[in-house]
Amino acid sequence: MKTEVRSFFDTVRPAIDSALDQLLPAETISPADLHRAMRYSVLAGGKRLRPALCVAAYSIYHEDYRPILPVASALEMAHTYSLIHDDLPAMDDDDFRRGMPSCHKKFGEAMAILAGDALLTLAFETVAACTQFDASRLNAAIVRLAGALGTREGMIAGQVCDLAAEGQALSAIELESIHRAKTGALLSTSVWLGGWLGGAATAELDALLQFGRKIGLAFQVVDDVLDETESREVLGKTAGKDRERGKATYPALLGIDQSRRHVRDLTEQARECIRPLGQRAALLVGISEFLETRAN
Amino acid sequence: MKTEVRSFFDTVRPAIDSALDQLLPAETISPADLHRAMRYSVLAGGKRLRPALCVAAYSIYHEDYRPILPVASALEMAHTYSLIHDDLPAMDDDDFRRGMPSCHKKFGEAMAILAGDALLTLAFETVAACTQFDASRLNAAIVRLAGALGTREGMIAGQVCDLAAEGQALSAIELESIHRAKTGALLSTSVWLGGWLGGAATAELDALLQFGRKIGLAFQVVDDVLDETESREVLGKTAGKDRERGKATYPALLGIDQSRRHVRDLTEQARECIRPLGQRAALLVGISEFLETRAN
Repeated sequence: MKTEVRSFFDTVRPAIDSALDQLLPAETISPADLHRAMRYSVLAGGKRLRPALCVAAYSIYHEDYRPILPVASALEMAHTYSLIHDDLPAMDDDDFRRGMPSCHKKFGEAMAILAGDALLTLAFETVAACTQFDASRLNAAIVRLAGALGTREGMIAGQVCDLAAEGQALSAIELESIHRAKTGALLSTSVWLGGWLGGAATAELDALLQFGRKIGLAFQVVDDVLDETESREVLGKTAGKDRERGKATYPALLGIDQSRRHVRDLTEQARECIRPLGQRAALLVGISEFLETRAN
Repeated sequence: MKTEVRSFFDTVRPAIDSALDQLLPAETISPADLHRAMRYSVLAGGKRLRPALCVAAYSIYHEDYRPILPVASALEMAHTYSLIHDDLPAMDDDDFRRGMPSCHKKFGEAMAILAGDALLTLAFETVAACTQFDASRLNAAIVRLAGALGTREGMIAGQVCDLAAEGQALSAIELESIHRAKTGALLSTSVWLGGWLGGAATAELDALLQFGRKIGLAFQVVDDVLDETESREVLGKTAGKDRERGKATYPALLGIDQSRRHVRDLTEQARECIRPLGQRAALLVGISEFLETRAN
């Protein structure tokens, strides 16, 4: 990782964690078990990739990124809600997440369902409460976030199609379409929200969205590669799970080498999208390079 | 039911159902199974009480209630999400709802979890997209809605406490506190949102909120009474379920007669709250009378 990107992560991650800590209800507040479950899953770590992308895009337009931190935190809440629900026995049935027992293993299924519901609710509340931004822009941001999480081309659509595709032979195009919805939509929206609330002009906003879409896909290919090549200790979640459940993956379709090449191509295309922004987009470029190296 | 209230329900319910039909993704849109599950649960009927309260409060300030219909519909989506998740095996494990198999019995658990998630997401999207209202007011409306659904004094808090209280002896005060969160918060917020987006002055808004809180409690006592006294055919859901699961209920605590008296008292107090609004609040008074008669 380049020094500039490393120092960005070194300051932004604690800032995000601290914002999340303040936004999440304390464990001392009733219902304590629920708040404990929410905090357990959110504060378990993770790369904070979505918040980092949001902050990096906002930072193109503002030196002080503190105003965007609640929105960036809401993205992490929404992401964590999806992990908690995806891990449920009725869904992907996963016992480990971020190196620890998954939420339902630790707190039971009812509490995990409710903790997920609560994080989704809190994510919307958190964004809507950002009165530091223009109110119309904020409403549009909420509509966009809901779309990224929703059933048409968003995360829920992706999860439904992912479950339905288990044990099916998929083409690379079908696989890409699932991942564009399941993980790509929220990742690209994270970049978009940073630009939108930062005040980006239309052309730059489009460029940021295209960048987000490319690295969203690259991210998923990397994830598939790591699921094949890394141990549970490294992943923090059950390894080889995709193959075991008969899920289509990029390594299964293309092989590991070709998948890594695909990551390089997507990352290069992503950088191409934001070339017009020049040096101001250096952080986003750095994050894309960081993602690329994870696959190797 | 008084003629005025009956004719209100006779026109508002179809208007709500039609708005919901348009706001929910069509079954022909992919993922079709998910959209089918969402529509199945939302369009299964129900009293549309929350939308009706919202529209009635808005109607105090505007003759044409069409602008509030999306918000009213979002309240029904949020309510239905909570029913779907509450019915899950890990929660209340209920096989029937609104006279039909519950969502997970019909579509499976994974789809029911995702359909609930999707309805919650769509509820927020729908409110945020209401550009016919002042943008700042809309942001505050979203914060309020999220609070009513949330973990502090909202619906999720109520459901957690309700599950934790199974088999426990509760006082009337403890029972009331659970219901204030579990069903009361969304009911009173439905009234509040109608007034708030209608442009109610602060004092009237407070009156509407107090009214909503009282009828929210009355509603739950009625629900408990009906669970004891009515058959599954009439209820559309499993009857006697509360007692079977060792849930504290008003009839168990106070007896049926005293519970009915409690409903009358709460309804009377509710009407008292909005007396200052005079004849303009006639519809809300009518709805409260309708709720009261259900218990008898």
